[in-house]
Amino acid sequence: MKVAIIGATGYTGLELVRILLNHPEVHITALTSERFSGQDYSSVFPSLRGIIRTSLETLNIDKIIRKADFIFTAVPHKEAMDIVPQLIEKDKKVVDLSADFRFKQPSTYEKWYHAHSSPELLSQAVYGLPEINRKKIRYAALVSNPGCYPTSVIMPLVPLLKEDIISTRAIIVDSKSGVSGAGRSLKTQSLFSEVSEGLKPYNIMNHRHQPEIEEQLSSAAGISVSITFAPHLVPMNRGIISTIYVRLKHSTSAQTIQNIFNKYYKKEQFVRILPEGTLPSTGFVRGSNYCDIGFCLQGKKLILVSAIDNLVKGASGQAVQNMNIMQGFKEATALEHIPLYP
Amino acid sequence: MKVAIIGATGYTGLELVRILLNHPEVHITALTSERFSGQDYSSVFPSLRGIIRTSLETLNIDKIIRKADFIFTAVPHKEAMDIVPQLIEKDKKVVDLSADFRFKQPSTYEKWYHAHSSPELLSQAVYGLPEINRKKIRYAALVSNPGCYPTSVIMPLVPLLKEDIISTRAIIVDSKSGVSGAGRSLKTQSLFSEVSEGLKPYNIMNHRHQPEIEEQLSSAAGISVSITFAPHLVPMNRGIISTIYVRLKHSTSAQTIQNIFNKYYKKEQFVRILPEGTLPSTGFVRGSNYCDIGFCLQGKKLILVSAIDNLVKGASGQAVQNMNIMQGFKEATALEHIPLYP
Amino acid sequence: MKVAIIGATGYTGLELVRILLNHPEVHITALTSERFSGQDYSSVFPSLRGIIRTSLETLNIDKIIRKADFIFTAVPHKEAMDIVPQLIEKDKKVVDLSADFRFKQPSTYEKWYHAHSSPELLSQAVYGLPEINRKKIRYAALVSNPGCYPTSVIMPLVPLLKEDIISTRAIIVDSKSGVSGAGRSLKTQSLFSEVSEGLKPYNIMNHRHQPEIEEQLSSAAGISVSITFAPHLVPMNRGIISTIYVRLKHSTSAQTIQNIFNKYYKKEQFVRILPEGTLPSTGFVRGSNYCDIGFCLQGKKLILVSAIDNLVKGASGQAVQNMNIMQGFKEATALEHIPLYP
Amino acid sequence: MKVAIIGATGYTGLELVRILLNHPEVHITALTSERFSGQDYSSVFPSLRGIIRTSLETLNIDKIIRKADFIFTAVPHKEAMDIVPQLIEKDKKVVDLSADFRFKQPSTYEKWYHAHSSPELLSQAVYGLPEINRKKIRYAALVSNPGCYPTSVIMPLVPLLKEDIISTRAIIVDSKSGVSGAGRSLKTQSLFSEVSEGLKPYNIMNHRHQPEIEEQLSSAAGISVSITFAPHLVPMNRGIISTIYVRLKHSTSAQTIQNIFNKYYKKEQFVRILPEGTLPSTGFVRGSNYCDIGFCLQGKKLILVSAIDNLVKGASGQAVQNMNIMQGFKEATALEHIPLYP
Repeated sequence: MKVAIIGATGYTGLELVRILLNHPEVHITALTSERFSGQDYSSVFPSLRGIIRTSLETLNIDKIIRKADFIFTAVPHKEAMDIVPQLIEKDKKVVDLSADFRFKQPSTYEKWYHAHSSPELLSQAVYGLPEINRKKIRYAALVSNPGCYPTSVIMPLVPLLKEDIISTRAIIVDSKSGVSGAGRSLKTQSLFSEVSEGLKPYNIMNHRHQPEIEEQLSSAAGISVSITFAPHLVPMNRGIISTIYVRLKHSTSAQTIQNIFNKYYKKEQFVRILPEGTLPSTGFVRGSNYCDIGFCLQGKKLILVSAIDNLVKGASGQAVQNMNIMQGFKEATALEHIPLYP
Repeated sequence: MKVAIIGATGYTGLELVRILLNHPEVHITALTSERFSGQDYSSVFPSLRGIIRTSLETLNIDKIIRKADFIFTAVPHKEAMDIVPQLIEKDKKVVDLSADFRFKQPSTYEKWYHAHSSPELLSQAVYGLPEINRKKIRYAALVSNPGCYPTSVIMPLVPLLKEDIISTRAIIVDSKSGVSGAGRSLKTQSLFSEVSEGLKPYNIMNHRHQPEIEEQLSSAAGISVSITFAPHLVPMNRGIISTIYVRLKHSTSAQTIQNIFNKYYKKEQFVRILPEGTLPSTGFVRGSNYCDIGFCLQGKKLILVSAIDNLVKGASGQAVQNMNIMQGFKEATALEHIPLYP
Repeated sequence: MKVAIIGATGYTGLELVRILLNHPEVHITALTSERFSGQDYSSVFPSLRGIIRTSLETLNIDKIIRKADFIFTAVPHKEAMDIVPQLIEKDKKVVDLSADFRFKQPSTYEKWYHAHSSPELLSQAVYGLPEINRKKIRYAALVSNPGCYPTSVIMPLVPLLKEDIISTRAIIVDSKSGVSGAGRSLKTQSLFSEVSEGLKPYNIMNHRHQPEIEEQLSSAAGISVSITFAPHLVPMNRGIISTIYVRLKHSTSAQTIQNIFNKYYKKEQFVRILPEGTLPSTGFVRGSNYCDIGFCLQGKKLILVSAIDNLVKGASGQAVQNMNIMQGFKEATALEHIPLYP
Repeated sequence: MKVAIIGATGYTGLELVRILLNHPEVHITALTSERFSGQDYSSVFPSLRGIIRTSLETLNIDKIIRKADFIFTAVPHKEAMDIVPQLIEKDKKVVDLSADFRFKQPSTYEKWYHAHSSPELLSQAVYGLPEINRKKIRYAALVSNPGCYPTSVIMPLVPLLKEDIISTRAIIVDSKSGVSGAGRSLKTQSLFSEVSEGLKPYNIMNHRHQPEIEEQLSSAAGISVSITFAPHLVPMNRGIISTIYVRLKHSTSAQTIQNIFNKYYKKEQFVRILPEGTLPSTGFVRGSNYCDIGFCLQGKKLILVSAIDNLVKGASGQAVQNMNIMQGFKEATALEHIPLYP
C-alpha cells in the first residue's frame, strides 16, 4: 500500500517513518515539508541515513492523491482542517494526528482552539483509540488520532466508568510528560538548558487536552464528566506518566479492580495491567506501543498510574495501529517493538 | 562557634559543609564518617579541594562533645536516636536531619519506622520549620529538621488550614523529586541508567513522609488531617515540585488566597508567593533556600504548587536556618544563595 | 535453535534478550543469574512484562549443556574463563562478551587483568568483529566479542592501517561513553547524582581496552601499533563517540579517504560512512547496530569520528551478529533496528 | 560603583547579574535587552524573583553613559564592535564578553568572523585572562573577555610553553562543552530532545575559538603555535572539559610538571592543580570560578585535562574578576562560590 505523510519533519512524522519502514504492507511514497522541501529526509534526520532515500516535497494535494492511498497528516492543528477534507473527498483514508477532528462538537473545538473550517467532518471522524473504538475505526475513512495525554488518561479510566464504580465528579489527573511532546519547533522553554534539571507544571486546568479527555470520558460514562487536569514538563525525551486520583462509589477489593481491567484489556496486546501496588515507569515502555497501567487502593481511594511513550502509543504507534485496523492488516504489524531499556 | 557534622559524607552532609563554609560565625571542627574515616574530606568530595582541609574521623561522642558546641546529625534514621540523647545530655545544641525526632507520638514513629530508643526526647524536640515554629526553635536544644517532601507540602498548606478555608478531608498531594533525595548510598534504582529517561511513582499512599505531613497539618488545623500522598522520582539531581489539590470550603477570589499567603509569608525572606496562574519550577530555586509557592483557582478547586531545592530548603539550608535561629544569628546568614540558573 | 544466556541480568544480558526475542531462529531456553535466581526475568526487567515468561536460574553447567545449543556468556571477566572451556568441551558454540578471550597472548591478558585459567583456549578464540574477521568467525566454536571502546576505535582505523596511509606511531584516541557501559553493578560513580552534569575522564593511558585495541591494530598493520587512549564518562545512557587523531603519511584528498572506507565497508550493512566534514552523533545510532564513521581532513591531519550504541554494536548486537555468522543465518537477522530518535 | 550590562538576557548576562548582586561595591543601574525591553528582569528569569527589581530597557548609549561607570557588553559579536567604541570614548571602563576585541590582528578576526568596524581599538584591548595578563588588565580601559573553550585550553598550556618544555607543533585539543555555551537563542540543535542522549562533535578544525587560542599560545611561546581543535557538544548544562595531548621535548618527571604549574598558579585562588593521575570533572567546578587542571604523564606523552564552568570562569565569573582587577577591588570579591555538587 502506498502511504504518504504530510508534515514529516516533526517528531511524530519521524516516528511514523521509523515504524512504517518496518511494515511489510507499506511503501512510503511521499513525505512533505515546507521548511525542508527538496532535501533528503535522511539529511534532516541522519538516524535514517542509508535506510530511506525519499526526498521531502512541498505539499501538493493533487500529487499526494496520485501518489498515495493512505495518508497520515502530522501537521499542526488549524493546518490539518484545510488539508484533510480534500483527501477524504478523493476517497483517501486518513489518520490525522492533529487535534482538528478530535471533538464531536464544533463549539468545544472552537472554544479551546479557533474557528473550524470543516465542522461537517467532525461527526464522521472516529476517535482513534483502538482498544475502545476498534469497530468504528475498522470502517472509518477518517480517524482522528488521540492526543498523548488523553491516551494515557482515557485508557485507565474508561473501564471504571463503564462499570460505574467511580465517582464522575472527583477525578484529578496529574500528568507528567517528556519534552518531545512539545514537538520540534523552536521555543525557549524547549531548550536543553531550560529543561534540564527543571521540572515544571504548566497550563493547569487550562490545557487543550482537558476537554478532549472529558468528551471521551463522558461518552464512556454516559453522563457528563469533568476532570481536574494538571500537566507537567519533565526533563526527559520520551514518556508520559499520568497519576489519576479517583473515588470509588463503594469500597471494593483490589481483585475487583483487577478483574475489571482484565475484562477490558486482557486480550489487548498493547495494554499491560500490573498487580495492585506495582507501578509503571516511562523507562519500561520507551520506544514501544505499550500502555502500562498500575493502581493502588486504600478504602475508597483509588490511584491509577499509566505510562506510555508519548511518541508511540501517544502518537505515531497508535496512528499505525489505526491504519492496520482500517486496512484489515494484523493490528500489531510493525508495532511489536520491545521497550528499549535502559 | 565550633560546629560538628556527624555523618558528613552523604549529600546533606556535603550541603551543610558547602553552606557553613561561608558562615562568618561558624568554624567546622569535626566531620565524621565510618566509611571514609581518615580520609581528607576534599578527597571524598573533590569539589571542595583547596577549600577545606578537615579530615574525616570515626564517630567518638566524647571527642565530638569536646570539639563542638553545636552539632548537626546527618546520619540515617535509627542511628540518630542513639547519638542525639548523648549530645543533649551534655548540653549541646543539636539539629537532627534524620526522621528520628520528627513525631510527637512514639507510636506513630514506631508504626512507620521501628522501635524508638529515646521516646522521652520526642516531646522536647521542636519540628524545625522556621516560618511556622520560629519561636519554639529559638529556645530549643534539639531541633528535628523536616523531611524534604514535608517541607514542600506543609508550607503551602498551613496558612490555608489555619485560616480554615479548605476542606481537611480531600487533600491530595502529588510530589515529584530529584534523585539526590534518595541519598548517596548504593541502590540499583539510583543508578544513572535506571533513572535517566525514567519517571516513576513509588510508595504511593505508603511513604513515611505522609504521617509526618499529617501530624504537622493536624497541628495547624486543630483537627486531624489525613492526606493522599503520591511521590514520584524524576530524572534530575535536585528539586521537588509538590502539586497539591484541595477544595475550598466556599468559593473565594484569587486575591483572598493571595492575601492569606501574604499574611503568613510576606515578611519571610525564603518564601516567594507567585501571582495566581504563575507556576514555579525547580530550576528557579536550584541551590537556594527558597520555597516558591504558586496556585491556580477555579471555583472551589484550588491547586497549589510549591518548589524547593530538596538539599537546601528541604534539608541542609533549613538546618542552618534553624541553627541561626537557635543561636540568635541573623536568620539568613550564609543562606542568601541566588538560584543557579541554568 | 536453543539459546542460553549465562549472566542475563546485566545490561548486555538484557540487550541480548531484547534482540533475540525477535530472532525467528532462536528460542531462549535458559537465563542464569546468581543474584536473582528463581525470579521471573520480567520482574527484574519490567520492560519485558508480558513478553517473556522465562525464570532466572542458578548457573549449572550440565543443565545449560542439556538445554542449549548456543550459549552467550555475559558474565564479568575472570568468571567467563572458568565457564567457557566446559561449554566448548561439550561442543557448544559460544560467544563470550567478557574480556577473557580477547587476547592472543596470555601475557598481555595477565598484565592488564589477572592470571588466566584457560590460556590454551586463547589461540582458538576468534575476535568477533564481523566486518574484519567474518571468515574466521564463520567456523569458530568460540567467538570473543570485542569491547565497546575497541569496536568504535578498530573499525575506523583498520582500513587506513591496511592501506598503509597513516603513521602507526601517533594515534591518539579520545573516547566518550555513556554510563550503561559501566554496567548495572553498584558503584558510587554510576549514581545518577554523580553522573548527571558531570563529564569526567578516567583511566587515561591506563584502560584495559587499550591493549585490546593495540593488538587488533597491530594485526591489521602488520607491525606493532601503540596508541594513546583517553576514555571519558558522559552523562547519557547509551552511546560512544571516539574521536581519533591520526597523521597521514602523505597528503591526500578526502576522496581517497572516502574510497578506502568504501572499499572496506561499502557492502557492510551496519557501517555508514559519512561524507568528509559530516560528523556522527550517538543520537543517530541509538538502539541500533550501526557504526557511523565520519572524518575531517586538513593537510596531513586526519580526524576520524565514530559513533556506536555501546550496548548494541558495542556489545549485544555484535554478539548476535557473530551468532548469525557462526550459524549461517542471514547476518542481519534480528538486528535491523532503526535508530530511536529522539 | 554603578554598573550596566548591555545584553542582559542571555545566559552570560544572567550569570553576571547572579554574581554582581552579591558584590558589595556594585550597584546594577541598567540592564538592556531589545527583545524583552520594558519587562521586569525577574519576569524573564524567575530565579531572581524578589531579588532584583530592575526593568529591562532598550539600549540607548547616552543613557547608559549617564547611568553607569562600568559596563559589561554581553551582546553577540558584530554588535559589540559598534557599541564598545562609544563607551570607551566617554571614558567608561568596559569588559566585552563578545569575540570582537579578542584578536590583535584585524585580519585574523576578519578571516574567521567578518569585517571589523573598529580595528583601531584592537591594539588597545587587553585579553582578559587574569592569571596571565593581570598587570595589563589593571590599567586597561577595555578588557576583552576570553572565550570559554580558550580559557580552558590556554590556562594549562601557557606555563608549559613559557618553560619551553613541550613541542609547539603537535598540540591536539579535544574539548567537550555543556549546552549553555550555545547560548539562549533558538536553534534546533539546542533543543532538549536533540541534545539529550546525543553527544556530538562539531566544527572540527573549523571553530572560531581555534585562532583565539593560537594567538594566545603563540604569544606565550614566543613563536607561532598552531593546534588541532575538536569541540564536542555534551548533554549537560554547564561545564567544559578540555583534554589536551602534547609531546614533551625531553622526558621529565611528574614532579617537574607539578613544579611548573605551581610556579605559575600556586598563589592563584581560582586555579587548582591536581596531583598527577587525578582527573578533574565538570561536576567539581559547577557554579564556581575555578579552573581545575590535572595531567597524566607517560614517557614524553603528556595529557592535560582542564575543567571549568563555561558560564563562570569561562565567561561571567572571569569578567567580574577582570572588573575587580581594573577597579582595584579584591580580586575574588563576589566570586568565592563553592561548587554546587551534586
